Amino acid sequence: MSHLLSIDSLSRDDIDHLMRVAAKMEPIAQRRKITRVLEGAVLGNLFFEASTRTRVSFHTAFSRLGGSVCDTTGFTFSSMAKGESLYDTSRVMAGYCDAIVMRHPDKGSVAEFARATHVPVINAGDGPGEHPSQALLDFYTIDKEFARQGKSLKGAHVLMTGDLKFGRTVHSLIKLLALYAPLRVTLVAPPGLEMPSELIERVSQQGLDVEVRENLAGNFSDVDVVYTTRIQKERFTAEMEEGFNLSRDFTVHRAFLNEHCNDSTIVMHPLPRDSRPDANDLDVDLNGDPRLAIFRQTDNGIPVRMAIFATLLKVEDQIDKDLRDVKWFVPETVGVDDARF
Amino acid sequence: MSHLLSIDSLSRDDIDHLMRVAAKMEPIAQRRKITRVLEGAVLGNLFFEASTRTRVSFHTAFSRLGGSVCDTTGFTFSSMAKGESLYDTSRVMAGYCDAIVMRHPDKGSVAEFARATHVPVINAGDGPGEHPSQALLDFYTIDKEFARQGKSLKGAHVLMTGDLKFGRTVHSLIKLLALYAPLRVTLVAPPGLEMPSELIERVSQQGLDVEVRENLAGNFSDVDVVYTTRIQKERFTAEMEEGFNLSRDFTVHRAFLNEHCNDSTIVMHPLPRDSRPDANDLDVDLNGDPRLAIFRQTDNGIPVRMAIFATLLKVEDQIDKDLRDVKWFVPETVGVDDARF
Amino acid sequence: MSHLLSIDSLSRDDIDHLMRVAAKMEPIAQRRKITRVLEGAVLGNLFFEASTRTRVSFHTAFSRLGGSVCDTTGFTFSSMAKGESLYDTSRVMAGYCDAIVMRHPDKGSVAEFARATHVPVINAGDGPGEHPSQALLDFYTIDKEFARQGKSLKGAHVLMTGDLKFGRTVHSLIKLLALYAPLRVTLVAPPGLEMPSELIERVSQQGLDVEVRENLAGNFSDVDVVYTTRIQKERFTAEMEEGFNLSRDFTVHRAFLNEHCNDSTIVMHPLPRDSRPDANDLDVDLNGDPRLAIFRQTDNGIPVRMAIFATLLKVEDQIDKDLRDVKWFVPETVGVDDARF
Repeated sequence: MSHLLSIDSLSRDDIDHLMRVAAKMEPIAQRRKITRVLEGAVLGNLFFEASTRTRVSFHTAFSRLGGSVCDTTGFTFSSMAKGESLYDTSRVMAGYCDAIVMRHPDKGSVAEFARATHVPVINAGDGPGEHPSQALLDFYTIDKEFARQGKSLKGAHVLMTGDLKFGRTVHSLIKLLALYAPLRVTLVAPPGLEMPSELIERVSQQGLDVEVRENLAGNFSDVDVVYTTRIQKERFTAEMEEGFNLSRDFTVHRAFLNEHCNDSTIVMHPLPRDSRPDANDLDVDLNGDPRLAIFRQTDNGIPVRMAIFATLLKVEDQIDKDLRDVKWFVPETVGVDDARF
Repeated sequence: MSHLLSIDSLSRDDIDHLMRVAAKMEPIAQRRKITRVLEGAVLGNLFFEASTRTRVSFHTAFSRLGGSVCDTTGFTFSSMAKGESLYDTSRVMAGYCDAIVMRHPDKGSVAEFARATHVPVINAGDGPGEHPSQALLDFYTIDKEFARQGKSLKGAHVLMTGDLKFGRTVHSLIKLLALYAPLRVTLVAPPGLEMPSELIERVSQQGLDVEVRENLAGNFSDVDVVYTTRIQKERFTAEMEEGFNLSRDFTVHRAFLNEHCNDSTIVMHPLPRDSRPDANDLDVDLNGDPRLAIFRQTDNGIPVRMAIFATLLKVEDQIDKDLRDVKWFVPETVGVDDARF
Repeated sequence: MSHLLSIDSLSRDDIDHLMRVAAKMEPIAQRRKITRVLEGAVLGNLFFEASTRTRVSFHTAFSRLGGSVCDTTGFTFSSMAKGESLYDTSRVMAGYCDAIVMRHPDKGSVAEFARATHVPVINAGDGPGEHPSQALLDFYTIDKEFARQGKSLKGAHVLMTGDLKFGRTVHSLIKLLALYAPLRVTLVAPPGLEMPSELIERVSQQGLDVEVRENLAGNFSDVDVVYTTRIQKERFTAEMEEGFNLSRDFTVHRAFLNEHCNDSTIVMHPLPRDSRPDANDLDVDLNGDPRLAIFRQTDNGIPVRMAIFATLLKVEDQIDKDLRDVKWFVPETVGVDDARF
């Protein structure tokens, strides 16, 4: 692994390795330990497209490993406006930074950027393309929640709902899950927002047991994970917007969980979720319910991104030798749970 | 103290504690010593409303304690534009950061943010609401200047002038001073910009000796502190703007100080001050006069904000054990005085 | 040296010192060593005008010395919009930071800023004014390339081409080279973009052998360095734009180097270069040619800016005592060469 650009380039061994390293990062992510293993290293955290939470998450992960971070935000790189190529920008940044995180609105641009540099590049989202660290933290969350419940990943049942057409997180996650087949995945999307059929075909051939259902009515009592996503109206064509009249039929709320699922079903969401009254992804009435795993999920972004940095910069075996106790006060709930909120 | 949201929630003991801790921070703030006590900790420095000086001041204070800072600036949090609630944003950030500083244009928003998180939140200004760290550094400045002059706070006389209606710093400072009554406060504001009467009533009941005067003519020879503020025309209603024709009658300048005050009267201002020729808050002709304390005042922002962080993160007793000498060159004027400029 | 504002204020001794210190920084810049010599120090990295690469370069240089960086970007300082003077901004920032890097669109503004502060200020570009660290890294690059080739600076021949009227980097570089006369400089610019004659006169009087030629035709076989610059159309007057019809006659490309120069001629450019097909500064067909030194040149920004900070903060003699090995993985090409890309 020299870059992290796409889930497609990861083998099951790569993922298993990242999951193991992420687990090793927990004492640091939960602020019981600190490390200086990346002391002196500089991360270029380049966000050509705004995304506060992802940027802060990468920033924190690198900081917690002892490194320094230089953020850049804004829709255009000032020099690109003067005709500079991604090649030049990339090569120049490689002289300044030891690793680069990049979000860019154009699909493929991060891979192009990576080709011109000799330092590790992490794709933090290239428009409709990929956002591999999100799929990795989603998978880490499922793994960790199952371990807590004493469940096995083998034969687990994941329900994906919401916008399965434009939601790049569900595309990446289903590809990742396919590496761990046999597994069951059920897909429920509003008309017009279905998962692309070629993707369903591909993961089915890899051994994933995929079922497509039209709505959330009926029995989901053996579902282990409900993964719901926001309807991304900003990606709709004018034609789609015209015909679209989304009811709350696809909203996951407490009643759905109580009546159709079971006591240990966890609910995930890549966030941000729409918290307005007419939201149609995930209702706020689940706030405080221990099955709502969305904040444990974002918390997991830290150890997973730490694992990505540690692996790319090859310090994963040095962490254990470079741990000190935290000196400041950490509230006991940090990194544990969000049920009490 | 789990958050710092408002002066109202601070007891005199809390303030005394912060003042003592701030004094302990002076060797670090003045760059004779360094500490690593917050090593590994991450501050989320969230400015939804621009304020370079306040942001940099918090950034530096956290850095000088050995922590890392992740800045966010801009009028909208990118995810909030997608309907995300302050609750969600807050809970997510709590998973990334060990403390959060937040400035936001809406009154009450920082407190709402704090309710959803288990890490300490500091209000760096919520619109017309509060900005408690400013009042604390103002009070610290008065205390320190008095100590230098051999004066006692008991029975001191503070003159507040300028915009006493919209200036949140004078509101916070007068509430804070009320905890230290007996003290005299004289208020002088242009018509329409007077201190709200309910606030005057409240602090008077707490024992503050408040006098309201119409202008700066007359005798102020026993005034120890002149606290002047900028006229915040951006907060005026259309009606106010129409009638308002501010002369320089309320401007504090060298002649006022020489003719109406005394040799040890200090001049404070929350800054920024208007330095244009028609400025009506504080004239530049006092630059270089040792009574002008405005830069000593901003300098004091560092030890006071360090004290806030140290107290919220409970490291104030560990500082003494974790001090090293500074290795780099520090000009001898740093942290001392600004009279020579 | 208390500030770095202009090449004019540097003596040959100053420059020799900076070059020696920069060479000492190479093991850190190339990521074989780390230092903590600036631990606890805070850099105010103030960019009132966008410039990602320069901002990141200063940020990294300060970070690699062990310091913390607080970036500010944006066209207006929020407080300046309220009438605050550069004097006040500067004095306030001096209370927060141990060194200040500033880019500002107005010529002279950085020097004005420096007058009000007691901490070192570095001019990172004041509009059409100066950008001294660029000239220093250009000179360091020439020196380092010559050392690699076994050449001496004495009697070297530098060709400057492109926009010699608005390009502040060529102005600064020629002034710097004049301190090292005897040296030959040949100037080739499109009509209307010639080097100002008073500058040519000045450096000639200092002993520089300056020749002006009209185009790139003819023999340049004894040229050691080709320094080309971007045509800055954004600085043209309306009148200039009208008449201007730039052919590619002034473009430096592989054929020019092969046919008119020699095997050891190096090509430099302050970047960004225009990589679009109609670019008229430096063709991408030289990518991969070892004579193209533009990325070694930007890489050199790190040790040179580290040397500037170390000199201004007087830690250049402490570096040797405060070095540790890097723990993370560094690709072998970092800091070495870009010929393979």
